Amino acid sequence: MKILLINSNTSQVVTDKVAAGARAVASPGTEILAVCGEFGARVMGTRSEEAIGHHSTIALAAKHAPGCDAVVIAVSYDTGLRGTRELLDIPVVGMTEAALLTACMLGGKIGLVNFGARVRPLYEELVASYGLSSRVAGWRTVESTAAYKPGSDDELEALLVKQANDLVERDFAETVILTGAVMAGVAARIQSRVSVPVLDGIAAGVPQAELLARACWPKPTRGSYAAPGKREMVNVDAAVAKRYT
Amino acid sequence: MKILLINSNTSQVVTDKVAAGARAVASPGTEILAVCGEFGARVMGTRSEEAIGHHSTIALAAKHAPGCDAVVIAVSYDTGLRGTRELLDIPVVGMTEAALLTACMLGGKIGLVNFGARVRPLYEELVASYGLSSRVAGWRTVESTAAYKPGSDDELEALLVKQANDLVERDFAETVILTGAVMAGVAARIQSRVSVPVLDGIAAGVPQAELLARACWPKPTRGSYAAPGKREMVNVDAAVAKRYT
Amino acid sequence: MKILLINSNTSQVVTDKVAAGARAVASPGTEILAVCGEFGARVMGTRSEEAIGHHSTIALAAKHAPGCDAVVIAVSYDTGLRGTRELLDIPVVGMTEAALLTACMLGGKIGLVNFGARVRPLYEELVASYGLSSRVAGWRTVESTAAYKPGSDDELEALLVKQANDLVERDFAETVILTGAVMAGVAARIQSRVSVPVLDGIAAGVPQAELLARACWPKPTRGSYAAPGKREMVNVDAAVAKRYT
Amino acid sequence: MKILLINSNTSQVVTDKVAAGARAVASPGTEILAVCGEFGARVMGTRSEEAIGHHSTIALAAKHAPGCDAVVIAVSYDTGLRGTRELLDIPVVGMTEAALLTACMLGGKIGLVNFGARVRPLYEELVASYGLSSRVAGWRTVESTAAYKPGSDDELEALLVKQANDLVERDFAETVILTGAVMAGVAARIQSRVSVPVLDGIAAGVPQAELLARACWPKPTRGSYAAPGKREMVNVDAAVAKRYT
Amino acid sequence: MKILLINSNTSQVVTDKVAAGARAVASPGTEILAVCGEFGARVMGTRSEEAIGHHSTIALAAKHAPGCDAVVIAVSYDTGLRGTRELLDIPVVGMTEAALLTACMLGGKIGLVNFGARVRPLYEELVASYGLSSRVAGWRTVESTAAYKPGSDDELEALLVKQANDLVERDFAETVILTGAVMAGVAARIQSRVSVPVLDGIAAGVPQAELLARACWPKPTRGSYAAPGKREMVNVDAAVAKRYT
Amino acid sequence: MKILLINSNTSQVVTDKVAAGARAVASPGTEILAVCGEFGARVMGTRSEEAIGHHSTIALAAKHAPGCDAVVIAVSYDTGLRGTRELLDIPVVGMTEAALLTACMLGGKIGLVNFGARVRPLYEELVASYGLSSRVAGWRTVESTAAYKPGSDDELEALLVKQANDLVERDFAETVILTGAVMAGVAARIQSRVSVPVLDGIAAGVPQAELLARACWPKPTRGSYAAPGKREMVNVDAAVAKRYT
Repeated sequence: MKILLINSNTSQVVTDKVAAGARAVASPGTEILAVCGEFGARVMGTRSEEAIGHHSTIALAAKHAPGCDAVVIAVSYDTGLRGTRELLDIPVVGMTEAALLTACMLGGKIGLVNFGARVRPLYEELVASYGLSSRVAGWRTVESTAAYKPGSDDELEALLVKQANDLVERDFAETVILTGAVMAGVAARIQSRVSVPVLDGIAAGVPQAELLARACWPKPTRGSYAAPGKREMVNVDAAVAKRYT
Repeated sequence: MKILLINSNTSQVVTDKVAAGARAVASPGTEILAVCGEFGARVMGTRSEEAIGHHSTIALAAKHAPGCDAVVIAVSYDTGLRGTRELLDIPVVGMTEAALLTACMLGGKIGLVNFGARVRPLYEELVASYGLSSRVAGWRTVESTAAYKPGSDDELEALLVKQANDLVERDFAETVILTGAVMAGVAARIQSRVSVPVLDGIAAGVPQAELLARACWPKPTRGSYAAPGKREMVNVDAAVAKRYT
Repeated sequence: MKILLINSNTSQVVTDKVAAGARAVASPGTEILAVCGEFGARVMGTRSEEAIGHHSTIALAAKHAPGCDAVVIAVSYDTGLRGTRELLDIPVVGMTEAALLTACMLGGKIGLVNFGARVRPLYEELVASYGLSSRVAGWRTVESTAAYKPGSDDELEALLVKQANDLVERDFAETVILTGAVMAGVAARIQSRVSVPVLDGIAAGVPQAELLARACWPKPTRGSYAAPGKREMVNVDAAVAKRYT
Repeated sequence: MKILLINSNTSQVVTDKVAAGARAVASPGTEILAVCGEFGARVMGTRSEEAIGHHSTIALAAKHAPGCDAVVIAVSYDTGLRGTRELLDIPVVGMTEAALLTACMLGGKIGLVNFGARVRPLYEELVASYGLSSRVAGWRTVESTAAYKPGSDDELEALLVKQANDLVERDFAETVILTGAVMAGVAARIQSRVSVPVLDGIAAGVPQAELLARACWPKPTRGSYAAPGKREMVNVDAAVAKRYT
Repeated sequence: MKILLINSNTSQVVTDKVAAGARAVASPGTEILAVCGEFGARVMGTRSEEAIGHHSTIALAAKHAPGCDAVVIAVSYDTGLRGTRELLDIPVVGMTEAALLTACMLGGKIGLVNFGARVRPLYEELVASYGLSSRVAGWRTVESTAAYKPGSDDELEALLVKQANDLVERDFAETVILTGAVMAGVAARIQSRVSVPVLDGIAAGVPQAELLARACWPKPTRGSYAAPGKREMVNVDAAVAKRYT
Repeated sequence: MKILLINSNTSQVVTDKVAAGARAVASPGTEILAVCGEFGARVMGTRSEEAIGHHSTIALAAKHAPGCDAVVIAVSYDTGLRGTRELLDIPVVGMTEAALLTACMLGGKIGLVNFGARVRPLYEELVASYGLSSRVAGWRTVESTAAYKPGSDDELEALLVKQANDLVERDFAETVILTGAVMAGVAARIQSRVSVPVLDGIAAGVPQAELLARACWPKPTRGSYAAPGKREMVNVDAAVAKRYT
């Protein structure tokens, strides 16, 4: 099986991190193809950057999906998820969506940790868009860019452990999600120090993508996720345009 | 891997159907152990029967879980799910919960088909208990007991196809779930005649149980899903009592 | 009038407390029959114990309801409420449900105090299951087992007064509910030290049960609360089995 | 015990109907004092009339509450309920609020019948204001003024039976509420022809008012339902003004 | 254009403040007619006072609306808004409703500051009645009556700045609303010290009233906001009575 | 004042329609600058097209906003609204958001008419993203492409009148919104045949944009709508890149 990881940031370091995280959790025999955006923000951290990212995700999907069995959107706002899900004939999973839904199956309310006060509203809106706001126990917002450097960071991980356990103690969280593509692999590293399951979107998303790829649910032929069919497109990348012919 | 299917009904025909459905979707190498209730209703169809079923699920779980890697509650009210999830050290998945969460990952609103007006409120309450009411496009309630007979039933399946497509056309459902343990395998049989993905709880639940069993999230040590620990129990089955020692 | 109090714990001390609390608030001429569970947890404090408790409630109801005019579920998770309500021909009231609905009639948002972080999620889920989450002002969780001893406890009551008033001051609660069967009578004892009405489930539940018993609303003949009718039951207590004949 | 029924309409025929309905359900020994508005609409049927009715309820409460043990707002929009509850030292119950909360204790979702498309939104807003929208199974709106004539009306009652049963069959209602002060007594008359409990606000409200009057919950001394205390009032009825001194 | 500001308090100082605030934001050529209540509370601060205020708003609207192009309810509970909107043929805007809806268009969640713990629940209920609770980031309640004195108050304004910025920092508010008619003009004065837009109901309500007056949407002829038509009214002010003829 | 209308479709006929609609409702002295997308779908009608449209909106905004006082997103999915609102220093209004919020101020629940079953879910998700789902009375979906031709269409308008009045009669809508950029001007043309106010997003959005442009609320300096500041951007249009310098 071949899973396409779409990181519509234009930052190879992030792509490398998600690819490593994905390979660590993928089933034996699953190949990971991690691609990086060709235009837009280095690391999306604002609403306008994320708006551009929607297009980037579509462009990467159109170009790289052929030959793949499923897609994971490897940006933690799940940027472009719904459009890509419609466009392709293979399953498309959002990393944060997958973390949330998997956490639901572990039981109870979910604590969320995010990086940066500025984007906290984007995550709250994302959770609400999945209809899952009532499953949230609480939020913690961490101001740190350490995660964007290569390698791990002990100080950051200690902080995340503290925040995760605080979500358990004070907000009654029964699972914790670390949002952010760069958290791939971090959840596993801090797990032993946290009293409830800790998820990241890659550790949840890759197995969910595999699951959907193995299952036999077909592409819908009606509704908003049916293939778009022949549509007139102007000035878009050839790979994108081809999808509408 | 070994998956325990707990059918807390006392009806072997239903157990056989879910076991067959489970084996049809399980990964190569996954063993299915399907067990049937030792007390309570033949097929739970009322609130009081379901109340007894909670205990039956716990008793079956305590007795049969040793040696298994994950559990699927194979009663479509997910009877005893939360209690079993707490009691055991292995992942426990509800068949209807799994269908709902998997449907979320396919995108859009969900149409649900249930059997019997009498239990429709139980399903609505179940969906609400997962915080997923806002993901529901609509409901259809079918009055038929044909599904409880061995084998398939063309007339029933034609009716289900009609109801599923009606959910798509009139209620804008983008996936359809057939609730009921006896629907195991039916979704796959009618899929080609329905314009959106059709899920049943076994086809969704067994792969989700496999996924969680393969993943490395630990049993929580805090919160309402931590192991109950040593507790004083009166007049319960030895296997159950042993869990609290 | 005769009210059946079902304490599906197997702990006589708790049964005695709820019986005393019930007698203190019952109308003149109302007889209280308080029964204790015959199997299961001493005091339910975990999800799996509560799952077993569902059955216990049904068993106690089937055995003791004949000759009674109404039932109060005297376990504060309202364990087995819906099943018992269906099974019997007399009104069945949950102690926490009754406290919540009565508090609604006193006006404004409700503060809740519960015992034990571990079961806090169970109470939140219970309130949500009644559709009343939006009426909650806030929660306070107390870690103390003092209430399970016979008699009253000054220190505990001082703590409850503090928590109740804190719910008023900081969370704008306009009534406070003390959850837990062992709180029967405590609300009345601390009332004078709290600035808003303090309810417990027995003080609210017994009068509501009397009210419904006096009223003339019939048992429904349709829907999920109609009598279950003749159903095939396996290996259940004779009194339970008789209900389905 | 003495219960004050406040009908802030200025229509004696409605007052007579609610008084008769109240006496039919009151406990032996309960005296019913039913009062009629001194200004405003004959029968409130618009938003502006209801706005005036708020004042009328307050004026009637201030004048007639002395000597009473509890109040029932006998207008089915529960007009002035919250203000009266604050103003008086005795329990104040809204007839529709009481019907809704009592129906909750009978179990399941509630069907509602109202008179007149024009005021249907007012009832929907009222139910929402109690946080109970999720408990509603469905609505039926009847266009008829027959209920405002003295006596009963066979044709109207046959229509109500039909609508109530339709709410059960098609919308899965497990109780039905007939809104409107003039429905007092009608629920009881049609009950035998409807398959689930049928409530009206007077049949539910008078017993709930008795219950609260017998109970010992005190007037809050904090929050929005505490007595208003000394306040400067301009050009209001002497009885009203006296309440703020 | 002529805008009627209805302050159904009986306090000229408040009326003067809202009039000044309104004139400061009105378009050139817009005339502001600010009227004060003729009966009821000096400054509504309790539920019963607000109940009387509903009538006061209707009375002021009936008397002063002729010749005006739109109305702003200049009481921050939007007292009598829905009734007045129905009664008149011109647009009627609630000051708090307008602030909330305008804040929505500025984007993100809204922080609210109110005066007095006692009335905090009234504001929460008001926001809920508009269906906007999910747009609220948080609340701050200030205990101060300084705003009711003529002129500005540096100490109060410093406190408001602090609370507003705290809503931004800790609750992720992206706009802040100062509730209370006497806040007219204060938002503008503190704006430069707060990091997000600060709104008051007059600064939002007057422009929204102008907008609706300029637009061409007609009075509905169906539904709950259609004119009440000929209705029988008892003992009401002549101007009010005339509206129902 | 100069208002920028961003139609991120690449279809001049739609741009012309919205420009005409905007000019018909703009205040005297307001200049309308209507721009058309340079890449992407002719008329967005699928999720993936809309994903591309987010970028198109940002690109148009970056290029054309200089010299303008406010922006109206003239695509009825409000495509790119939140990103544009963050990016620019001037107010940005979504046409559907503006219609919804303006309808709220006219009172009561809102009926919505949309074109095409395929995109109906997009509109439902959009309304939910504003937190306004509870304000919706009902939906009608029309299958017609007549609106995309130049000029008006009597048959289509008759159909819209019928659907709008049906929303009033059967779903108790008190206002009706015609979604779709091509509905600009249609609401006004059919208004006299519908019993409640009929809004379109341009007729609501242009005046709201004018209102915000006239008002003095500043650009936030904190939170998710603050200017993005200096950010590293790759391979984007020069006008876009300049915004992040």
